[in-house]
Amino acid sequence: MQRWFPVLDWARRYDSATLGADLLAAVIVTIMLIPQSLAYAMLAGLPPEVGLYASILPLLAYAVFGSSRTLAVGPVAVVSLMTASAVAPVAAAGLADAVTAAVTLAALSGAILIVMGVLRLGFLANFLSHPVISGFITASGLLIAAGQLRHILGVEGGGGTLPEIFAGLAGQVGAVNPATLGVGAGVLAFLYVARRWFKRGLAGLGLPGALADAVARAAPVMAIGATIAAAGVFDLAARGVELVGAIPAGLPVPGLPVLAPDLVVALLPAAFLISVVGFVESVSVAQTLAARRRERIAPDQELIGLGAANIAAAVSSGYPVTGGFARSVVNFDAGARTPAAGVFTAMGIALATLFLTPWLADLPQATLAATIILAVLSLVDFRAVARTWRYSRSDFAAMAATILVTLGWGVEPGITAGVLLSLALHLWRTSRPHSAVVGQVPGTEHYRNIERHEVLTDPAILSLRVDESLYFANARFLEDRIAALVAERPGLRHVVLMCPAVNDIDASALESLEEINRRLGEAGIRFHLSEVKGPVMDRLRRTDFLTHLTGEVFLSQHAAVCRLRAADGAGCTPAPVS
Amino acid sequence: MQRWFPVLDWARRYDSATLGADLLAAVIVTIMLIPQSLAYAMLAGLPPEVGLYASILPLLAYAVFGSSRTLAVGPVAVVSLMTASAVAPVAAAGLADAVTAAVTLAALSGAILIVMGVLRLGFLANFLSHPVISGFITASGLLIAAGQLRHILGVEGGGGTLPEIFAGLAGQVGAVNPATLGVGAGVLAFLYVARRWFKRGLAGLGLPGALADAVARAAPVMAIGATIAAAGVFDLAARGVELVGAIPAGLPVPGLPVLAPDLVVALLPAAFLISVVGFVESVSVAQTLAARRRERIAPDQELIGLGAANIAAAVSSGYPVTGGFARSVVNFDAGARTPAAGVFTAMGIALATLFLTPWLADLPQATLAATIILAVLSLVDFRAVARTWRYSRSDFAAMAATILVTLGWGVEPGITAGVLLSLALHLWRTSRPHSAVVGQVPGTEHYRNIERHEVLTDPAILSLRVDESLYFANARFLEDRIAALVAERPGLRHVVLMCPAVNDIDASALESLEEINRRLGEAGIRFHLSEVKGPVMDRLRRTDFLTHLTGEVFLSQHAAVCRLRAADGAGCTPAPVS
Repeated sequence: MQRWFPVLDWARRYDSATLGADLLAAVIVTIMLIPQSLAYAMLAGLPPEVGLYASILPLLAYAVFGSSRTLAVGPVAVVSLMTASAVAPVAAAGLADAVTAAVTLAALSGAILIVMGVLRLGFLANFLSHPVISGFITASGLLIAAGQLRHILGVEGGGGTLPEIFAGLAGQVGAVNPATLGVGAGVLAFLYVARRWFKRGLAGLGLPGALADAVARAAPVMAIGATIAAAGVFDLAARGVELVGAIPAGLPVPGLPVLAPDLVVALLPAAFLISVVGFVESVSVAQTLAARRRERIAPDQELIGLGAANIAAAVSSGYPVTGGFARSVVNFDAGARTPAAGVFTAMGIALATLFLTPWLADLPQATLAATIILAVLSLVDFRAVARTWRYSRSDFAAMAATILVTLGWGVEPGITAGVLLSLALHLWRTSRPHSAVVGQVPGTEHYRNIERHEVLTDPAILSLRVDESLYFANARFLEDRIAALVAERPGLRHVVLMCPAVNDIDASALESLEEINRRLGEAGIRFHLSEVKGPVMDRLRRTDFLTHLTGEVFLSQHAAVCRLRAADGAGCTPAPVS
Repeated sequence: MQRWFPVLDWARRYDSATLGADLLAAVIVTIMLIPQSLAYAMLAGLPPEVGLYASILPLLAYAVFGSSRTLAVGPVAVVSLMTASAVAPVAAAGLADAVTAAVTLAALSGAILIVMGVLRLGFLANFLSHPVISGFITASGLLIAAGQLRHILGVEGGGGTLPEIFAGLAGQVGAVNPATLGVGAGVLAFLYVARRWFKRGLAGLGLPGALADAVARAAPVMAIGATIAAAGVFDLAARGVELVGAIPAGLPVPGLPVLAPDLVVALLPAAFLISVVGFVESVSVAQTLAARRRERIAPDQELIGLGAANIAAAVSSGYPVTGGFARSVVNFDAGARTPAAGVFTAMGIALATLFLTPWLADLPQATLAATIILAVLSLVDFRAVARTWRYSRSDFAAMAATILVTLGWGVEPGITAGVLLSLALHLWRTSRPHSAVVGQVPGTEHYRNIERHEVLTDPAILSLRVDESLYFANARFLEDRIAALVAERPGLRHVVLMCPAVNDIDASALESLEEINRRLGEAGIRFHLSEVKGPVMDRLRRTDFLTHLTGEVFLSQHAAVCRLRAADGAGCTPAPVS
């Protein structure tokens, strides 16, 4: 039971000290989450209340099923962008309105995550290599920031790719609304200053560090309050500033979402990508935080926890959620000890939804856009690109492709291109495993690479060492390599494959070995193995490979050379080449 | 020059002995190829002359650019099925007629193969593991045979999947044409007998072996001659037997195909699959035959050769071609020495196109269908399925998925499912590399798995050995494994990662190591490495990982344990656990 419901583990030992810590963390996270949930809903192309709804029930569900103590789930920037990009074409095609599509997406994403968790398919997240995910997040940050510029400038626009966004903006240079630009630029500047100097300044004024920190984190809330006031005082609506408008007060009524089959089919690929990206991000944050307190998380249970959170989003008119990096770190730093902090945060957002929404109607959209821009620019990490370039050109290629395709063609093609390219590059690397023709080190029983050492070889015997497990990606390499080596050695009568580093031989590699054996046999050459590991040998014994093998399996390379030379009446040591 | 034009290599040394051998082989292959080219064109859903055209110019192009001495290119069964499945939806959608679509497919396939050859992308063929390709070929054989049944029964029908084909046949049980069935069943029986007993029977009558063999191979041609005669004598057309009908005489006029952009986009995925499948099949035959004479082929040049052959097919109104298994073996066995045999075969087919076509109008389609069925049933290999099941369950899963999806949903989904599943299974296997917590073997400097040996360990030091290169698929595994091990060892102060089997660390794994280092550091645990290979160490030195590393890099595991224990004033050997 406890495996499936981690809540049973922590709730039993809950005490008042933990309660105090969790409550304090919840207050700080709530202050941070209110503007974020409004802003990310706007980024996802959804009404603001959807962001609030996605910050209530999902947090409760995660508290019951999630295995991390301090992960703060809810709307996050990258998943909101992916939601926008999945919902827009569906809505444009008239399949469903944006909110219905977003709810369907959350339901699908939740179902996918839960299925992955139950079937222990978390390893699928490994398809997303670090360079791909890092490149994708950098590109998403740039796309999101560029996409919000229109709200800062007060112009029309749209588009899911950088060229579309800039083409849209370029056509509207004359239409910039000065009042909107004033609000947007002002909030941007305020938030920038707040982030860089607020905390230090307040601490300098004598405020305790924790309090200074909390006040600094409240900067977006202050910006919201100030611009709402300004909208009233200066009648900004009349000056053309777009306001959020009336938000329905009251909590969402939970209900099962209706899943239209054609909508499900259209959204399934996007739901899968959202699930995997959300999971990877979330697990990485959760693991980092857990390690700091020597706690641990269960990755497969995280899939269930995040799946439950998304199902909860779907039944309460929300949209896809996951664990947010910045928010989780704040939650952790503010002292949260258990997922109860998430429950209290949910209560905070519920109260805000009930009582604050009437005040938010006058909130300028430019304020939210500025909040988003400041938040996502921290996602952009060009130094990671430079670091990857220095370390590995093939990893860099995967990263660069992800960034360029994401910016130029959108999020789904971007992540797909990155995954495919990194798989292809991986196959390319492992398709040419390190291998060496070896010869005897004089006076020893050791065999070394003939290109690097002065060694003795017998022209009738070719000894080849492979330094990698044999599987489908490199099976054909071995055929090619042996064919090439044999073609240039007319006097050859024996090929010995030295396998000390072969941990596995899959069915493709087995067929290649059979093929090599057959081809060598037809050319009158015997094929031998040496130094085969125990488990590999056990598996070969289950096939008829060993009965077809024209040669033998030797325990050591030296035993092979001795025996094969003895058949010619020669000793163990070949004569040096004169 | 010789690299790009292998013809320069063999043509210079061409002599009359080689000419005689090549000519004899060409006669035998031509006799085999005439019925095959007609039949496979019908299988591809194209007029019969397209099959003949695909057997002339492509053979000349391969003779110039191909690296195999004995590969016989031309129409083959599996590629014809894939062509049918790609062309049918395009033709049904009205994008183009079948012949135009097939020509476009050949042009695309040729271009893809040449680009792969020039960029040395032959390794992409490694995506197709042996179990996937073998399962795909078995399923294709079954699909082709089932699809030809309607020609034997003389009923209408169609469909690209087994359920569709059988649903079509089931609805037509009453419409079976007795005359057609007579011809089809007769030819099937004749060909079956010819294949099993002809050669032996003729040899028993005193015919020399080679001649008996050639006569046996001419069985399909005899069947064609006999059924054409029967069609005339018994007026089979009036009895409802479908005949091939008038075939335009004369050679195709070479001309550049017009590539419509929407057609190109629609056919590109199929062209890619056809290219890769054709290449894999072709290279495997070519390599087998080359090895018998200790020759070798150049896989990247094979891409160019096959690409040129497909471009030649496209400019001469043909359809996609590749190296055929059965035909190449016949060519080799008949004594072909150089690709000139292919040139002579092309001449033979050209002569047939010029002078035989008027005679072929009366050929019953049932004869061709019987030829196809006999040819493809040798592709079906259930023993390979059983063998794979015994050897490896995950390889079997990939094979079974390929077979079932190909039969149930068609060739493109089938091969895609197989490739994706084998990649996923490979990732799954390598995402959990073998790793072991190790301890000191008493009285030695050796460190072994604590679960298998009686070893000594220090509660402050965790030594973990990983038996695999570290890359994106297993990077997160390492994070999880270390997090789990650390969580259950409260007194831990050092983690030593033992890397004697780590041949590579990619950027994902490097980030994981940095993350592990950071997390352990925050928990007050130092992170060390031991027995890192030279090239891996060189690469780590190019990063700032070593400056952030909280611990050290030790040459040996024993040096690590000695040094870390010495810092506590203890000796190299931990006390036994009491």
